[in-house]
Amino acid sequence: MAEGIRLSVVLVEPQTPGNIGTAARAVKNFGLTGLQLVDPPTEEPTGEARAFAGQAREDVLATAEITSLDAVVDHYHTIGTTATITASGQGHVRFPPTTPTELRDTLSSRTGDVALVFGREGDGLTNDELARMDEVCTIPADPTYPVLNLGQAVTVFAYALSPLLQGGAHIDAATSPLADPAATEQLHVYLQELLTLVESKEHKRAKSGRMLRRVLGRAHLTSGEVATLTGVIRRSIAAIED
Amino acid sequence: MAEGIRLSVVLVEPQTPGNIGTAARAVKNFGLTGLQLVDPPTEEPTGEARAFAGQAREDVLATAEITSLDAVVDHYHTIGTTATITASGQGHVRFPPTTPTELRDTLSSRTGDVALVFGREGDGLTNDELARMDEVCTIPADPTYPVLNLGQAVTVFAYALSPLLQGGAHIDAATSPLADPAATEQLHVYLQELLTLVESKEHKRAKSGRMLRRVLGRAHLTSGEVATLTGVIRRSIAAIED
Repeated sequence: MAEGIRLSVVLVEPQTPGNIGTAARAVKNFGLTGLQLVDPPTEEPTGEARAFAGQAREDVLATAEITSLDAVVDHYHTIGTTATITASGQGHVRFPPTTPTELRDTLSSRTGDVALVFGREGDGLTNDELARMDEVCTIPADPTYPVLNLGQAVTVFAYALSPLLQGGAHIDAATSPLADPAATEQLHVYLQELLTLVESKEHKRAKSGRMLRRVLGRAHLTSGEVATLTGVIRRSIAAIED
Repeated sequence: MAEGIRLSVVLVEPQTPGNIGTAARAVKNFGLTGLQLVDPPTEEPTGEARAFAGQAREDVLATAEITSLDAVVDHYHTIGTTATITASGQGHVRFPPTTPTELRDTLSSRTGDVALVFGREGDGLTNDELARMDEVCTIPADPTYPVLNLGQAVTVFAYALSPLLQGGAHIDAATSPLADPAATEQLHVYLQELLTLVESKEHKRAKSGRMLRRVLGRAHLTSGEVATLTGVIRRSIAAIED
């Protein structure tokens, strides 16, 4: 069986059942893998969620998994979404963002499990949540009103990334699996350890850690690359402590 | 002033006020020209339409024009949208459909007024209505459930065609220049120096250096990122040599 990208949609604390239904419908319309919910309003989908889900009410919506952000970070290459991209004072949390088109292009030679993570209707993802994502993506929109409704944002991402899912006809030449998310997280633990040794100011340490997560996230590392990088960082730590 | 494509959204007999609101929001999110309604449920937007429109409630929704399909056909290059693309027995009415991406590409060297025409929530546009359109367009979707909700379909078209619009959708604050190549090269010099300290085998050193160049190259580093990375690597080298 041909491998490719498997895309899941994760909604963090969605408040409006209609948006959960719309997200389920988009997952089914564009052939994504599934829907996961972090702290949804109720565990049982309401009538409104079912109405908005259309024919996705019996499968995608009914089988939506309740999860935690920790579990998502541990098991997926995570793409945090945001409509707020100002760089000032946020120290790499939201910057630089990639676009859905860039994401489609750079992921086209990868295989593995990817989670598209969406925040709350009003406030989106917090800076702390975004800091845990491997990369941050935003939909290019009109500067006078760039904030899409949650259901619309999920639909646009599902549409834009769906070419990655269609049979892999154009991605079968030289695909390489994304690194195991647990190995990538371990690499970030070592990187933070190195930063602790070479950077005395704690706020700079945290900021550099976020930047490294953004840089390495955008590179869509393979497992070989994570292994090599981990080796280099571990040996650097050992050499410093020596 | 530069001319370009001006895109209007036309909803034919929309039944759900929420979809009218969502369409208005998409028009504003992606910098389209306006919204027109053929036989809407009421002439005054309801509270539900206003809620779904978000910040588009006071302009796009409030100024939505009531029109007729005749008037639209007379004044616009019309693009009929459909989720039903079967060719059989319909004598070219729905076939061959173009995709939003094809439309974006083929319209990119054109100027003028274009109307994206969407049908009813349940049945879409009739064959008679589609027969009057200049072209027919469909959103590529999963064959098991290719029918998007009306508001989602408008959003996907608005997103997909927004690159055609002058001054429309773009990431305003986020375009960031690539780092100065000389600074990036200097970073690689330091990385090689670090590898020399922590990797005794020369062929592994060279291989890891190439991998780091690939990884950082794919991340399309900004100048700020190169500066931060360079600092971390320099301090690591200093700490090892200490």
